[in-house]
Amino acid sequence: MPLTLIIGDKTYSSWSLRAALALELAEAPYSELLIPLDRPDTHARILAHSPTGKVPLLQTEEGPVWDSLAIGEYLAERFPEAHLWPRGEYARALARSLCAEMHSGFAALRTHLPMDLKRDQALAQVPADAQADIRRICALWTDCRERFGQDGPFLFGHPSLADAFFAPVAARLRSYRIELPQVAAAYVETVYRWPAFQRWFQAAQTERLR
Amino acid sequence: MPLTLIIGDKTYSSWSLRAALALELAEAPYSELLIPLDRPDTHARILAHSPTGKVPLLQTEEGPVWDSLAIGEYLAERFPEAHLWPRGEYARALARSLCAEMHSGFAALRTHLPMDLKRDQALAQVPADAQADIRRICALWTDCRERFGQDGPFLFGHPSLADAFFAPVAARLRSYRIELPQVAAAYVETVYRWPAFQRWFQAAQTERLR
Repeated sequence: MPLTLIIGDKTYSSWSLRAALALELAEAPYSELLIPLDRPDTHARILAHSPTGKVPLLQTEEGPVWDSLAIGEYLAERFPEAHLWPRGEYARALARSLCAEMHSGFAALRTHLPMDLKRDQALAQVPADAQADIRRICALWTDCRERFGQDGPFLFGHPSLADAFFAPVAARLRSYRIELPQVAAAYVETVYRWPAFQRWFQAAQTERLR
Repeated sequence: MPLTLIIGDKTYSSWSLRAALALELAEAPYSELLIPLDRPDTHARILAHSPTGKVPLLQTEEGPVWDSLAIGEYLAERFPEAHLWPRGEYARALARSLCAEMHSGFAALRTHLPMDLKRDQALAQVPADAQADIRRICALWTDCRERFGQDGPFLFGHPSLADAFFAPVAARLRSYRIELPQVAAAYVETVYRWPAFQRWFQAAQTERLR
C-alpha cells in the first residue's frame, strides 16, 4: 500500500500537518517525503512531485491526490472503517462545513499568526481582524462541544477530520498565548494530548530549519 | 424536502452559482433566497441566516450546511443516485483535488477577473499572476479532457461537481475575452451549453442590480 505524503517543514507547514493527521486517523501505512521550505531549490523540488507547486500532496498507486481537503476525503473513502468523518449525516455535513470554512477562510489569523510550533510568545498586538477570526473559531468550537461533548473531548466527540483541520489553529492559539474562553482552552488542551498531534509536534521541536 | 439555498446576486456571486449547480446536478427540489449584495442591509440579512456572514448557505431540515464544497459533499451523499462525483475511485479523488485547488486558490484570477455574467469586454491588460492562474487552469482542463474525453464533453465526461466548481471560471474566461487553447475553449463552450448553467446565466441577464 505505497502511499507517500509530500510535506513541508513540520514547524511551519500547517496544511501538511492536516494531511498527516488525516493519515494518522486512517491508520494508513505511509511514507513521508519532507521538502524543506524557503530554500533556493524548494520550488523546483516541490514541482517535481506536485503539479500545483504546493504541499501537501499524497502519491497513491493511481496517481497524485492534492490539497489537504481532497486528501482527507480520499482517505475517508478508502478507509471507511476508520470513520474519518462523524457517523451522523448532519454531524458529517457540519464537520465538512467547518473544514471548508477553515480551508478558504480565516485569512487574518493565517497571515498574522502563522503556525510556528517552536514559538511560545505572545504578539505585541493581535490585529482586530485576527481577533474576529479567533472569536468565530471559538464560537464554532463551543457549538460543537455543546452538541457532541457527551461523546468525547474532540469537536465531534471522537477524533475526526475536523480536528485535523483545527489542530494547527489550536497550536497557533497556544504558541501566540491567546487568552481563550474556557471551552476553547479545553479544546486546545485536547489537541495537545492527542497522540497523533504530539508525534508531529515533538518532531517539529527537533527539526533543523534554515 | 425543504431545502433552501441562500445566495447572492446571480451576476456576481460565483460561489452561489457553484452551490446552485450542485443542486441542479442532484435534481434536488429546493427554493432560493437571494440576498442582494453591496447594499446597506446586506451583511445583516446574510447574518440572519448564515453564521459565517457569507453566501451560499443551504438550509436543511436538520440545520445549516455552509460553504459550496461542504454543500456539494452533502448533496453527493444525500442523492447518491445522481453521482455528483465521478464513479471511479481515482477519478473522484482527482475531481476533489481540482475542486479543492479552486476552493483555496487562483487568488489572482478571482481578484482581477471577478465574475460578472453581464460583462463582455476584454481587460486592458491581464496581470501576469492572473495569466499564470489561467495557464494552470487550462492545464488541469486539458489533462481531464485527455483522460475522460471518451465519456462526454465535461471535465470527467459526465457533468459533476468539478464542472460546478469551474463553470464560473469558464464564465470569466469568456466574459473577459481571454484567448484560450483549443481544448480549453471547447470546454468553455460545453459549460455555456449546459442547461443548468444556462438557466442561471439567463436569470443573471435580466437581474436588476444596485
